[in-house]
Amino acid sequence: MDGYIRSARIHEYNKPLELDNIYKPVISRDEEVLVKVGASGLCHSDLHLISGEWRNIIPLNLPKTPGHEIAGWIEEVGTSVPENIMKPGDLVAVFGGWGCGWCIQCKSGDEQLCAFAKWPGLSSFDGGFSEYLLVPSYRFLVNVRSSEVVPENLAPLTDAGLTPYRAIKKIKSILGPGRNIGILGIGGLGSYAVQYAKILGGGSKVFAMDRSESKLELASKCGADHLVNLRSIDNLVDRIRAQTGGKMLDVIIDCVGTDKTFYDSISILAKGGCVVIVGLFGTAAKIPIAMTVLNEYKIFGSLWGNYNELREVIELLNEGRIKNHITKFRLDDVNEAIKLLKEGQIIGRGVLIP
Amino acid sequence: MDGYIRSARIHEYNKPLELDNIYKPVISRDEEVLVKVGASGLCHSDLHLISGEWRNIIPLNLPKTPGHEIAGWIEEVGTSVPENIMKPGDLVAVFGGWGCGWCIQCKSGDEQLCAFAKWPGLSSFDGGFSEYLLVPSYRFLVNVRSSEVVPENLAPLTDAGLTPYRAIKKIKSILGPGRNIGILGIGGLGSYAVQYAKILGGGSKVFAMDRSESKLELASKCGADHLVNLRSIDNLVDRIRAQTGGKMLDVIIDCVGTDKTFYDSISILAKGGCVVIVGLFGTAAKIPIAMTVLNEYKIFGSLWGNYNELREVIELLNEGRIKNHITKFRLDDVNEAIKLLKEGQIIGRGVLIP
Amino acid sequence: MDGYIRSARIHEYNKPLELDNIYKPVISRDEEVLVKVGASGLCHSDLHLISGEWRNIIPLNLPKTPGHEIAGWIEEVGTSVPENIMKPGDLVAVFGGWGCGWCIQCKSGDEQLCAFAKWPGLSSFDGGFSEYLLVPSYRFLVNVRSSEVVPENLAPLTDAGLTPYRAIKKIKSILGPGRNIGILGIGGLGSYAVQYAKILGGGSKVFAMDRSESKLELASKCGADHLVNLRSIDNLVDRIRAQTGGKMLDVIIDCVGTDKTFYDSISILAKGGCVVIVGLFGTAAKIPIAMTVLNEYKIFGSLWGNYNELREVIELLNEGRIKNHITKFRLDDVNEAIKLLKEGQIIGRGVLIP
Amino acid sequence: MDGYIRSARIHEYNKPLELDNIYKPVISRDEEVLVKVGASGLCHSDLHLISGEWRNIIPLNLPKTPGHEIAGWIEEVGTSVPENIMKPGDLVAVFGGWGCGWCIQCKSGDEQLCAFAKWPGLSSFDGGFSEYLLVPSYRFLVNVRSSEVVPENLAPLTDAGLTPYRAIKKIKSILGPGRNIGILGIGGLGSYAVQYAKILGGGSKVFAMDRSESKLELASKCGADHLVNLRSIDNLVDRIRAQTGGKMLDVIIDCVGTDKTFYDSISILAKGGCVVIVGLFGTAAKIPIAMTVLNEYKIFGSLWGNYNELREVIELLNEGRIKNHITKFRLDDVNEAIKLLKEGQIIGRGVLIP
Repeated sequence: MDGYIRSARIHEYNKPLELDNIYKPVISRDEEVLVKVGASGLCHSDLHLISGEWRNIIPLNLPKTPGHEIAGWIEEVGTSVPENIMKPGDLVAVFGGWGCGWCIQCKSGDEQLCAFAKWPGLSSFDGGFSEYLLVPSYRFLVNVRSSEVVPENLAPLTDAGLTPYRAIKKIKSILGPGRNIGILGIGGLGSYAVQYAKILGGGSKVFAMDRSESKLELASKCGADHLVNLRSIDNLVDRIRAQTGGKMLDVIIDCVGTDKTFYDSISILAKGGCVVIVGLFGTAAKIPIAMTVLNEYKIFGSLWGNYNELREVIELLNEGRIKNHITKFRLDDVNEAIKLLKEGQIIGRGVLIP
Repeated sequence: MDGYIRSARIHEYNKPLELDNIYKPVISRDEEVLVKVGASGLCHSDLHLISGEWRNIIPLNLPKTPGHEIAGWIEEVGTSVPENIMKPGDLVAVFGGWGCGWCIQCKSGDEQLCAFAKWPGLSSFDGGFSEYLLVPSYRFLVNVRSSEVVPENLAPLTDAGLTPYRAIKKIKSILGPGRNIGILGIGGLGSYAVQYAKILGGGSKVFAMDRSESKLELASKCGADHLVNLRSIDNLVDRIRAQTGGKMLDVIIDCVGTDKTFYDSISILAKGGCVVIVGLFGTAAKIPIAMTVLNEYKIFGSLWGNYNELREVIELLNEGRIKNHITKFRLDDVNEAIKLLKEGQIIGRGVLIP
Repeated sequence: MDGYIRSARIHEYNKPLELDNIYKPVISRDEEVLVKVGASGLCHSDLHLISGEWRNIIPLNLPKTPGHEIAGWIEEVGTSVPENIMKPGDLVAVFGGWGCGWCIQCKSGDEQLCAFAKWPGLSSFDGGFSEYLLVPSYRFLVNVRSSEVVPENLAPLTDAGLTPYRAIKKIKSILGPGRNIGILGIGGLGSYAVQYAKILGGGSKVFAMDRSESKLELASKCGADHLVNLRSIDNLVDRIRAQTGGKMLDVIIDCVGTDKTFYDSISILAKGGCVVIVGLFGTAAKIPIAMTVLNEYKIFGSLWGNYNELREVIELLNEGRIKNHITKFRLDDVNEAIKLLKEGQIIGRGVLIP
Repeated sequence: MDGYIRSARIHEYNKPLELDNIYKPVISRDEEVLVKVGASGLCHSDLHLISGEWRNIIPLNLPKTPGHEIAGWIEEVGTSVPENIMKPGDLVAVFGGWGCGWCIQCKSGDEQLCAFAKWPGLSSFDGGFSEYLLVPSYRFLVNVRSSEVVPENLAPLTDAGLTPYRAIKKIKSILGPGRNIGILGIGGLGSYAVQYAKILGGGSKVFAMDRSESKLELASKCGADHLVNLRSIDNLVDRIRAQTGGKMLDVIIDCVGTDKTFYDSISILAKGGCVVIVGLFGTAAKIPIAMTVLNEYKIFGSLWGNYNELREVIELLNEGRIKNHITKFRLDDVNEAIKLLKEGQIIGRGVLIP
């Protein structure tokens, strides 16, 4: 049906998405770009959104199309889009941290921190579980020049593969020869985190920590130097002390973000060490005050990534330096994919193909 | 009595100090310096030490002379002390963070973070509640060339006046025009912190926060732009929002360090903001995970200061750019001074004069 | 004449500007803003442009309106301009470093470094020697909320008052108590530089250096701690050594940028010191290799400033923390103003009022 | 002959060294350590010293033993040397940047920048072309725990392998995916520089540049991504533009340090790029002022390395992550080694074995 497209939409919270025929979006402003979706990643955030857990934090006008990890091809461009930069047919990753472009954060390059952010699938803008996506500005797209990249490998980089990259860049100056970095939680983000720790770590040893043996195996394939099974280990502190020759870990990237993972992280931290929290599973975590002061610990929150960081991550993909671990689903099977994600049965990142 | 000196020593925990005649220390190594104590600051840490609260963390062989905030005159030097650098008669501040000089922390200039630190009055070394102090190396002394500086103004700079300086230097890069910094707790450290925030803040507005009106008055004299009485205020968040035009505080120096002060600090923090904890009154504090990630909060512990930072603080004193607020006691009245400090009755820093 | 405006334009290089009636610009794109010019600064760059010296670096289609230091009031806005951010009647400063918004530099917040920059009055876009200016995006405007600010004080901040601010921010981490910073050249930029060095210097001593006694007097009014007349002094190195107690200068902001000023700067630099070049008067300068390596000197070029830096400078103006020194001219007298600037007879910044 | 040791000493400038029997040094201070030399690297600086070129900069009391790149075994220790840290029999690298331990540079961890430095073989202290070396403090030694390390591989790390490490650490924050770094000059330092650029570069591409094909081959073995023969190339700028897709080089480590190499470096530098000079072959180099300002170039001098940096370099050796390229000579053949170095005939670093 010309003029119509298929989108998977939330009509009611905590119900299956419905596959609707909706009007194909039309360009109405100078900088807009219409993207034909090639792949759209499925994230734990989508579960929170669909279930209605976030209905107060992110109030939505239903029906709404979720999906904020998107790659595809440019179909049409607004009149201000410079042809030498973006043109129909280009394969693009959609940078999802759509900001106002004017506030202090946006003007310093951290659009994902914009106070007035409107993220696709998480605001008044529809997201990527759809055949097409209307993007407010070509400045939110990164085009990929390599002919070997496919959308299903590109899409996860816009969130799962971007978030740990920013986290590790934040503490890169601490890392180097003789230093140790731990990645706690080897899920969608963690497998990327291990790879970045090897590339950006300047010779640091990388410790992968998880409660699942199969996830630790994935970490091993990604290059982790030491694997720590948090479920089977007796005494985490002693184990890390032994494996680091008493030095402990200089940095821990907490991809889980619970009171327990934070407690574990602090207990194995070296003097001057840093925990970067990117996971959002918990509500609060406890800091031991004397230890934090006496050892000059640092604790950072880190949110998603900015546009230039996405560029850098895609550069690594272009050069074949990072591997993706994905499971593909047809858009028609979106509810099946959601079910499997809930059950923890998706290996690597689940990606929808319209 | 020649060969003897008077020292106030702990003989038993939680008992008054005793004023003993002990042997005058004698130089036995190349780099040692004998300092005639001119003034020795009285710190809350001394209360913890004397009461025995810290007997497990810092086990002492009693009797022991406390005191780690010390200034005085060089009496005698070891054979390796270069005369052009230090010589008898020089007025010196004693840098108290005595480190091994070899570990990673010491070799990067942060001796106060040494893993093998032996602090005067807080280790096997005796401290400054005494007529004389034996210092293991002239490299732990800063000599003062100004003839206008007196020991009682110098001594507090080695801890009360050094700790907030380091804390503010850590986050100096965040400060500048249009930024806001809060100092929480206007005690011994806080009144210095307000002054440093004005000097290093690059045009930032300084908010002083305390539960005591008289301490806020002191903050006002030190240059604070806004005073916030945490006891009398209705809604801290609304108040700060109003006073900052919605921007909130970019940095908070928490000189108290309790769960409550940390909670207050996080609740009024701007996006990308930082809480630096220097106070040690509490045991644990709670981080709200989602807020920390979404706003990219930073939390730093900060410990004392290093030698070069002490140099800089003394430079400010030499130039008349910082004011001290002290109350003097004779060494003989040490137990009276301790009593008044416990009761919160000392205005500014209490200083013992042997 | 409705639909027409008056602009001072270059018709032929090295000739007086002509005051033309030209069509009033009309908004044709979503984000554009029409600004009624309130004041437009006159810069040495304008002389280079008008004389034709830069005809190869910056080829222009004549006639062309110069002027890149502009402030005024919003007259009309495009359909995408958010009313809560910018609206007709607002007093605005025009950020002149118009960039593409997409390249690595723009996306990291340094639009003035854009490889595809199109600056007003220095590209295909007309500048501010005119009654009206068409600005491509509201994101290039900073609106001023203070009712006490007038356009003639605002305009110079967009270049003369912005360039030294960025230069000093770059090296702020070197400055602090006991440090020394020199400002070399107290012209349009230098008088601002002295003020920023006091505000951002964290207690550093500020040395003003120039060949003119009257300019040094201006520096003194701006707060310089030491004045150095480069014309009358016998031995610059000895003089600085004496005045700094042998420490020399940690930072020098070279607002002139010639072989001579660079030579002077390097000769009085402390170990680990930094020269920041912002002036463009010379073509080349010589680095002494052994001294640069042995003392770990740093040499930085610094270009204009970015949008957030302009925000910060305007914040200082709003708070009454910086003073402007300007001389006003009617737009009709533009050629007279140009003549006086060439002859070095304008005190402070010359500003055109349409 | 007991009590005597053999040392190769300068008796007269520009003459062969003489192999003398001199008194074995004796420990006379608490912190001193007597090291039995295992290997001593031969550096271009030694040629300058022996020839007398540096007689004014570094005035020596002849006879003098050169040699500042030293490794060996601890023979005897002073009374203050902690046994758990250093003890007879330990294999040690000698950190050569002997500083006063008290000045601002020393206290911030950069002892090699000490204003009162007394380097072995380059001051009143004798150096390592000898059977034994007296080291003023155990704090100038790094002990190596790996049993696989031999002195001849350790010695070059203390200068040739340390200097480029510091240089690259200085600019590490610029490097990352999509960035390019050039190493100019693949001699003793350059072959290490290439390896560090791979380890610390965070995914940057490494360009090796030299005039000798055999040295470029060495760079290739060390992991360089691109080789540029400066002798045979037609147009360096075009070549780099082509190989970087127009991006040019973000960082260049100039291991030569002449006007020509600096000119080349600047001509191929990206916006915001940095040249770090470590080589000392030339006297002066020319900065193009407008290019430096408009592109915000940075130019750094970098001197040797500090103690912690030596630790990190040795850590890389321990882990087998860096390769040395050395040629061994007996101490008796020191004059032959000097001759070959002068003629450019030594492959990799020449090392003397007593």
